[in-house]
Amino acid sequence: MKDISEQDLKSNIPLASKKENTPKSRVTVGNHVIGGDQFIVIAGPCAVESESQIIEIAKEVKRLGASMLRGGAYKPLTFPYRNDRMFELGEEGLRYLHQAGKEAGLPVVTEVMDGRLVETVARWADMLQIGARNMQNFPLLIEVAKTKKPVLLKRHPGSSLRDWLGAAEYLLYHGNPNVVLCERGIVAPHTHDPTSRFLVDLEVVLAIREYSHLPVVVDPSHATFKRSYVGPVAKAALAIGADGIMVDVHPVPEKAAVDPLQALNYSAFRDLMLSLRKIAEAVGKTL
Amino acid sequence: MKDISEQDLKSNIPLASKKENTPKSRVTVGNHVIGGDQFIVIAGPCAVESESQIIEIAKEVKRLGASMLRGGAYKPLTFPYRNDRMFELGEEGLRYLHQAGKEAGLPVVTEVMDGRLVETVARWADMLQIGARNMQNFPLLIEVAKTKKPVLLKRHPGSSLRDWLGAAEYLLYHGNPNVVLCERGIVAPHTHDPTSRFLVDLEVVLAIREYSHLPVVVDPSHATFKRSYVGPVAKAALAIGADGIMVDVHPVPEKAAVDPLQALNYSAFRDLMLSLRKIAEAVGKTL
Amino acid sequence: MKDISEQDLKSNIPLASKKENTPKSRVTVGNHVIGGDQFIVIAGPCAVESESQIIEIAKEVKRLGASMLRGGAYKPLTFPYRNDRMFELGEEGLRYLHQAGKEAGLPVVTEVMDGRLVETVARWADMLQIGARNMQNFPLLIEVAKTKKPVLLKRHPGSSLRDWLGAAEYLLYHGNPNVVLCERGIVAPHTHDPTSRFLVDLEVVLAIREYSHLPVVVDPSHATFKRSYVGPVAKAALAIGADGIMVDVHPVPEKAAVDPLQALNYSAFRDLMLSLRKIAEAVGKTL
Amino acid sequence: MKDISEQDLKSNIPLASKKENTPKSRVTVGNHVIGGDQFIVIAGPCAVESESQIIEIAKEVKRLGASMLRGGAYKPLTFPYRNDRMFELGEEGLRYLHQAGKEAGLPVVTEVMDGRLVETVARWADMLQIGARNMQNFPLLIEVAKTKKPVLLKRHPGSSLRDWLGAAEYLLYHGNPNVVLCERGIVAPHTHDPTSRFLVDLEVVLAIREYSHLPVVVDPSHATFKRSYVGPVAKAALAIGADGIMVDVHPVPEKAAVDPLQALNYSAFRDLMLSLRKIAEAVGKTL
Repeated sequence: MKDISEQDLKSNIPLASKKENTPKSRVTVGNHVIGGDQFIVIAGPCAVESESQIIEIAKEVKRLGASMLRGGAYKPLTFPYRNDRMFELGEEGLRYLHQAGKEAGLPVVTEVMDGRLVETVARWADMLQIGARNMQNFPLLIEVAKTKKPVLLKRHPGSSLRDWLGAAEYLLYHGNPNVVLCERGIVAPHTHDPTSRFLVDLEVVLAIREYSHLPVVVDPSHATFKRSYVGPVAKAALAIGADGIMVDVHPVPEKAAVDPLQALNYSAFRDLMLSLRKIAEAVGKTL
Repeated sequence: MKDISEQDLKSNIPLASKKENTPKSRVTVGNHVIGGDQFIVIAGPCAVESESQIIEIAKEVKRLGASMLRGGAYKPLTFPYRNDRMFELGEEGLRYLHQAGKEAGLPVVTEVMDGRLVETVARWADMLQIGARNMQNFPLLIEVAKTKKPVLLKRHPGSSLRDWLGAAEYLLYHGNPNVVLCERGIVAPHTHDPTSRFLVDLEVVLAIREYSHLPVVVDPSHATFKRSYVGPVAKAALAIGADGIMVDVHPVPEKAAVDPLQALNYSAFRDLMLSLRKIAEAVGKTL
Repeated sequence: MKDISEQDLKSNIPLASKKENTPKSRVTVGNHVIGGDQFIVIAGPCAVESESQIIEIAKEVKRLGASMLRGGAYKPLTFPYRNDRMFELGEEGLRYLHQAGKEAGLPVVTEVMDGRLVETVARWADMLQIGARNMQNFPLLIEVAKTKKPVLLKRHPGSSLRDWLGAAEYLLYHGNPNVVLCERGIVAPHTHDPTSRFLVDLEVVLAIREYSHLPVVVDPSHATFKRSYVGPVAKAALAIGADGIMVDVHPVPEKAAVDPLQALNYSAFRDLMLSLRKIAEAVGKTL
Repeated sequence: MKDISEQDLKSNIPLASKKENTPKSRVTVGNHVIGGDQFIVIAGPCAVESESQIIEIAKEVKRLGASMLRGGAYKPLTFPYRNDRMFELGEEGLRYLHQAGKEAGLPVVTEVMDGRLVETVARWADMLQIGARNMQNFPLLIEVAKTKKPVLLKRHPGSSLRDWLGAAEYLLYHGNPNVVLCERGIVAPHTHDPTSRFLVDLEVVLAIREYSHLPVVVDPSHATFKRSYVGPVAKAALAIGADGIMVDVHPVPEKAAVDPLQALNYSAFRDLMLSLRKIAEAVGKTL
C-alpha cells in the first residue's frame, strides 16, 4: 500500500521521479558537486560551540579531506530544557560557521527549523538542511524552496520513501531543483540491536536510484548514535552506492555540547578517510 | 534506550509526567471535559467541503451523540498537487466549521499547520489540533501554546512515547496546560496486515497512564485508513481505557473530498454509538 | 508484497480461507466451543510446577469462570541453561495437568515442541499448542495434524498473517480441521513503549475475520509480558471481537517458576472475569 | 529490554559471547576457513533441480571464484502445496549436491529441517544449514549439534540478536563449536521500500563483533528477494566487515524452480565477484 505506483510517479512526484532518460541530478555546492563521481564527505560538529572551535574543526577536517563543513546553530531538542552545555548560538553561530568555511575553503551546511529564520540562515549558509522532524513541515519547505539554495532533506525515521519523495517534490515544485536526500536511520523493529539508535536503511539508496534522479547521502552518526558504528556504516554506504556521507567530528567528542556519543575525533576521522579513499578507488569514485 | 527513565521524568518531562499524587488532568472544551468519566466522541468529516455540508454533518453527529465536531480547513498533503476535489477552504472553512459547531451545539477542533495561521485558527476553533507530521515542529508548538486554547497533540507514527511526551512538555512549559494526546497509529512491521495503514498502538494508552497525567484519545480512522476496522478499534479503545475517540464521519464517504476509504456514513456511526454506549456502561463510563 | 492476494486465497490457502458462504469454524474442546457465542477464557500457570499446584489452580480458575486450563510441561527456553526453579516436568507434568483438568472439570491445553513427543502429549491433553517459535516447523505441524486433536496455533512475533494462515493450511491439509489461531504479540517498532515485550496486534483479529473462517484467541500475558497490561488488553480483545483469551494465572506470581512478571494472581483474575462478563454482555457474548 | 546484559553474557551465553581475550572463531569447512582473512562466497541455486544442473552450476561458480556451493534438497515452503516446478529432490538431491561439490572442488552446505533427517543430510553435506524458520527449533538444534559438522545458523527475521545467540549457545553447549551465523534480513517497518522483502540488518554484523566471537555471513538474496539489490548489498556486507556472503546463482534465474526473482545469472555473478575482489583488497581481505 505504501508502494510507489505508476500513478504516483506520474501524478504525485513527476519532478522527483526518474523517467527513462532522466540523467542523475548533480547539485553544486561551492566547489563540489553532489551526485557525480566524487564521494562527498560533509564533516563537522553537531553544534557550533564557539568561533575558535568551529574554525579549528573546519581547518582540520579540510586537511583530512572533507568536502563540506557542517555545524548546528539552531538545534531542535526533544525537550524544552537546555542545560549549560546545550547552547544554541543562533545567528552568532551562523556567522562563525560562515567564517570557518571561508577560512578553511569549505562550503557549509546548517539546519533551519523555523520558517521565520530561513532568510537569515540562507544569508550565511551554502546549503540549507531540513531536519528529520521537519521533513513534512510543508510551510517550511516552501520557504526554503524560495531561496533556491541547495537543500539537504533528511528523512524522518518513520517515513516511507513515498513520503520522502513527496517532500522533495514540494521543494522542486516550488522552484528549487537543488535537492539532496539524506538517509539517517529508520524506526527499527525492537529486535534490532538496541545499542544502536535507529537502523540505517542502506537499501533505500538502491530504491532511490530506482525511482528518482536525486542524489542521496547517508548520515551514519545520527542514524546509529554510536561512535564505533559510524566508520563501518560509512564504508558500507560508499560500497552500496551513496553519493556521500555526513559525519559528526569533534576534537574531544566526550565534551561535545550535543550528542557526545556519536562524534569521531580527528584520529578516527583520519582513519575513516583513509579507508574510504581505498574503497572509493575500488568502486570507481574519487573522494 | 528509548525507555523513559527516572531522569527523564524528573528533568525532561517534569510537567507532563505523573508524580505519586498527581490527579489525572481534565481538559475542558466547551461543555465537555476530556479526561473525566465521559468517553468523548469527536466526529466529523476529514475536510470541511462547504457550509451546508459541515452544518448538516454537525447536526447529525450531535443527534447521534457526538461530543465534539472535527473538520479540516487546512490539510497537509503528502504531495504538492491538489485535484479539484481536494480543496482546502482555509479561513472560509474555519468560519463554516465555527458556524456548524454553534448551530449544532458542539465545540470544534481543527488542525493548524502553519505558525503564521495560529491566531486565525484560534479565533474560530475551540481546540487546536497539531497534526502528526508537526508533532515536533517546536516553533509551531510554542505559538499554539501561547493561545492557551486546548490542544489535541497527535502522535507521529514514527514517534516514541518519550518523544511525544517531550512535545507535550513544550506546550506545558510554554504555558498551556490544556493538552490532550491523540494516538493515530504507528509504523508497523511489514508483516502486519497490509490492508490497514498504520497499526493502532492501544497499549500506549496504558503506558501514558503509567507515566503521565494527560488524557488520551484514539483516532481509529487515520490509524487504520479502513472503514470496516474503525468501529471495532473504537470499541477496543474504549475497553482498554482511552478517554475518547476521534472518528471521520461523512454522509457519502465514497464522495468525501479527502480520505474516502475511512469515513463512516451516518448509519455506521449510529451503530457504533449504540455499541459504545453499551460498552461504556459496562466499564463504568458515560458517553 | 506480503498482502494476501486472490491467488493466495485460491491456490495457497484454499482450506484456511473464507469463501463467500463459509460459516465461521467452531472448534469443540471438551464441553466448550471456540468460535461460537461464548468468549473462551483459557487460564492457568505458565509451567506445571507440581501436582498439588496445578490442581489447586485448576479448581480456582474454574470457580472464577475459566473455560479451559493451560499449563506447560515442556518449555522452550531461549538459552540452554535452566536454574533450579525453571523445571520442566515432562510427561509427569502432563499427567498432573490431565488430573487437574479432570478434577476441576476443565479441558486442558499444553505445548508440544518435539515431533517425537506428539503422541505422548496427545494422550494427556485435550488440545495441543504449537508455540510461536515452531509456527513454521512443518514436520511438527504434520505430526500434530495426524492426531486430529484440536490445535492452538500461536503466531510467531515476526510472522505475517499470510505465513500464519499458511501454517494453518498445513494442519488443515494434513487432515485436522480443528485449528484455533492465537495472537501473542508482534515485533514492534523500537519506538513502541519498551516496558511491554511485544505489541499485541488486535487488528489482526479483524484481518482474520476478513480472510479466514478460523477462530482466534489472544494471549495478553505472553504478548505484553507485563502484569498491569494483561487485563486491559484482554478487555480490548473481547471488544474487538476475538473468540477468547489465554491468560497466565498463578497463586503467587512473583514465585512462578517461569515468566513471573506477567501472571495474574487469583484476585486480579477474579476482577478481570467480572469486567469481561460485563463487556461480554454489552457485545452480545456469553462468558 | 531485549538488550544483551552483563548477566546474559555470563549466565545465558557464556559460550557464544566474547570475553576480553577471546580470539574470533574460525570455522573450517573443506579447504576454507570462515572467520579469517578470506571473504567467503557461498554460491549456488536455491534448489537442486537435477544432477546435471547442480554440477554445471558448481563448476561455473567455482571458476568464477566461489568458495563453497549451496543448494537445497529439502525446502520449507510457506504453503503445503507444490506445483510441478517446486520439486524437492530429498536424498537424491543431496547425492547430486555432494557429487557436484566433489567434481568442482567445493565444500557444500544444505538445509536440514527435520530432526529425523539430520543423519542423512550430515552424510552428504560439509556444512548443515538451520533455516530461519527453525532458528529456535531446539530439538533440531540439539540433533545437529551432535553431528559436530559445521553449522550455518540463519537468523529468523523476527529474532533479536539475544535470541539468535541463544540458539547458537544451544549448538555450542551440545558440543558443536563450528557455528557460523547468517543474517538474511529482518522484519522491516512497513515504511521501508516495499519492493524489497526483508530489510538486511548490516549493523548486526557490528553488534555480533561486539558481543560474540562467532563468524557471520550475509545472505543478500533471501534478505532482499530482489535481483538488482543483491550485488550492492553484498558489497556493503563486505565493506562493513562480514566474513562472507551466501548468494543464489542460477543459469537462467527466471526459470529457477524456487525463488526466481532473486538469483543472479552467471554474468551478474562474475561482475559481482570482480567488484568484491577490488573491495576486498581495499579492506585488507582476500577473496
